[in-house]
Amino acid sequence: MARPTLAIHGGAGTILRSQMTPALEREYRNGLEAALAAGWAILEHGGKSIDAVEASVASLEDYPLFNAGRGAVFTHDGKQEMDASIMDGRKLRAGAVAAVTNIKHPIKLARLVMERTDHIFLAGEGANEFARQMHVEIESDEYFFTEHRWRQLREAIARGDVKLDHSVPGRQLAVSKPIGTVGAVACDRHGHLAAATSTGGMTNKKYGRVGDTPLIGAGNYADDICAVSGTGHGEFFMLGLSAFDVSARMRYAGLPLADAVRETIERLTTIGGEGGLIAVNSKGEFAMLFNSEGMYRGYITSDEPMVTAIYSDEGK
Amino acid sequence: MARPTLAIHGGAGTILRSQMTPALEREYRNGLEAALAAGWAILEHGGKSIDAVEASVASLEDYPLFNAGRGAVFTHDGKQEMDASIMDGRKLRAGAVAAVTNIKHPIKLARLVMERTDHIFLAGEGANEFARQMHVEIESDEYFFTEHRWRQLREAIARGDVKLDHSVPGRQLAVSKPIGTVGAVACDRHGHLAAATSTGGMTNKKYGRVGDTPLIGAGNYADDICAVSGTGHGEFFMLGLSAFDVSARMRYAGLPLADAVRETIERLTTIGGEGGLIAVNSKGEFAMLFNSEGMYRGYITSDEPMVTAIYSDEGK
Repeated sequence: MARPTLAIHGGAGTILRSQMTPALEREYRNGLEAALAAGWAILEHGGKSIDAVEASVASLEDYPLFNAGRGAVFTHDGKQEMDASIMDGRKLRAGAVAAVTNIKHPIKLARLVMERTDHIFLAGEGANEFARQMHVEIESDEYFFTEHRWRQLREAIARGDVKLDHSVPGRQLAVSKPIGTVGAVACDRHGHLAAATSTGGMTNKKYGRVGDTPLIGAGNYADDICAVSGTGHGEFFMLGLSAFDVSARMRYAGLPLADAVRETIERLTTIGGEGGLIAVNSKGEFAMLFNSEGMYRGYITSDEPMVTAIYSDEGK
Repeated sequence: MARPTLAIHGGAGTILRSQMTPALEREYRNGLEAALAAGWAILEHGGKSIDAVEASVASLEDYPLFNAGRGAVFTHDGKQEMDASIMDGRKLRAGAVAAVTNIKHPIKLARLVMERTDHIFLAGEGANEFARQMHVEIESDEYFFTEHRWRQLREAIARGDVKLDHSVPGRQLAVSKPIGTVGAVACDRHGHLAAATSTGGMTNKKYGRVGDTPLIGAGNYADDICAVSGTGHGEFFMLGLSAFDVSARMRYAGLPLADAVRETIERLTTIGGEGGLIAVNSKGEFAMLFNSEGMYRGYITSDEPMVTAIYSDEGK
């Protein structure tokens, strides 16, 4: 019997205490706690890791502060194109979607790709057509547009806090631009692993850019020794195959999980990338590491209470 | 000074001598030889590996027998959607496109993504828009439709050869369905590595399926220790991160190139995948291995003449 463990992230990036208000911080922590609770409700009753990561990520997709699902940012063309992927480490199966629109829970669509098709990755209009055939929950533009109102609110709150701080003229409000992705990794009591990652992409992205989130091995990966979810500047996770790289360092170099994650983040830094990783192994040990100023994150295990953290000097 | 080496493939799959005619085999070998000559013209004069792999793959894209560029197969909707990726191991940079249409040389578009954008992977209509802005060569549907005529011709030739062979009733002509991808890997005299891969996708594919070819680390990868291009049932290359896996086994487990490629193919077999890999290291050593019945392939080095091979019992 392994130790059930669930770890999540809500994006990494420039997150400065000086630009955060207590009210906004409370909102972020509420979102992380709700996502941990959603996944843990499954794991603590002996449920599967694949169901837990899906539930946690779906919860984060519901929460407008995070850049995924409802909170997805806008592309250059004013659209909200979302990407997601999920991987079941026990079966070594995966599903992913890219550039889907109006899907309430892209992570659930990714799971349907995994379970109902012979493919792994569906993109664009074809993925939306698959969604319609699967009858997944669709939401109106207004539902997603709530993010816009939330962002206005958030920026107003933040401006209220920093309006006298002109020490960084021209700098955008940091709280409004985390490197936005959400993710979850889990080990269930059988030691089976799973990972799920979802994003609303890059603000102002053009030309059908695909980032690391829907790419198995780049932003998301799970097998029989670890499950990994990443967040950060996606192109560097793609070049470093950062999620798979953790598994490769464990399998081929014999590193423990924490060392593998540390080396993968060092590699990310070396090649110029910014972001973070969360990972869990089949004993239920976990690691959360980032080279950015902060990462929204949290974890819960069968012998530790729920913990959430934002900055680099708190939590694990 | 490294030994300049160029290796290419034109797809793997069920390729049986009993279903091949001498005329058709000659056509395949002509295509492989033309692609080797195109890349070697660059390498033998001290040119860069990245230019050589682009030239070889562009040549294969011109050749209607291979499933890439002009020879791209048709999707379920009767479209020819093409994917390609390229990676410069020296700079650890990459570019990729998916589901582009009417682009004469998708591999050249992938290189433009690498060199002219901050992104790695552009897909669908956005990638086509980028192509228009870059003024890459566009061809009419008729140009690509030549493949259809070529295939008709090819099947006619093959039928002429096997029309009395009813020993495999109901079986499609094997020569008409290699697992179609083309690729090239090269080491230049400075020991710099590069890989390029291009495909016309799966016949009758639906729902915007994306395969391994445009995915860095799955169907294509290059760094400072090896360059790898794959061909086969893409979903398994995606789960195994097969191209990156060769590098990981060399870097973390200390394996020589040939052993790393062999173990990666064994892993592919274990997880149920069929196909092949070509790879080269920074000394100019190369390996070409597959678990299918054949793989169209060829190589040339500064101390060996050009060699082409199709079946498992010939060549290297």
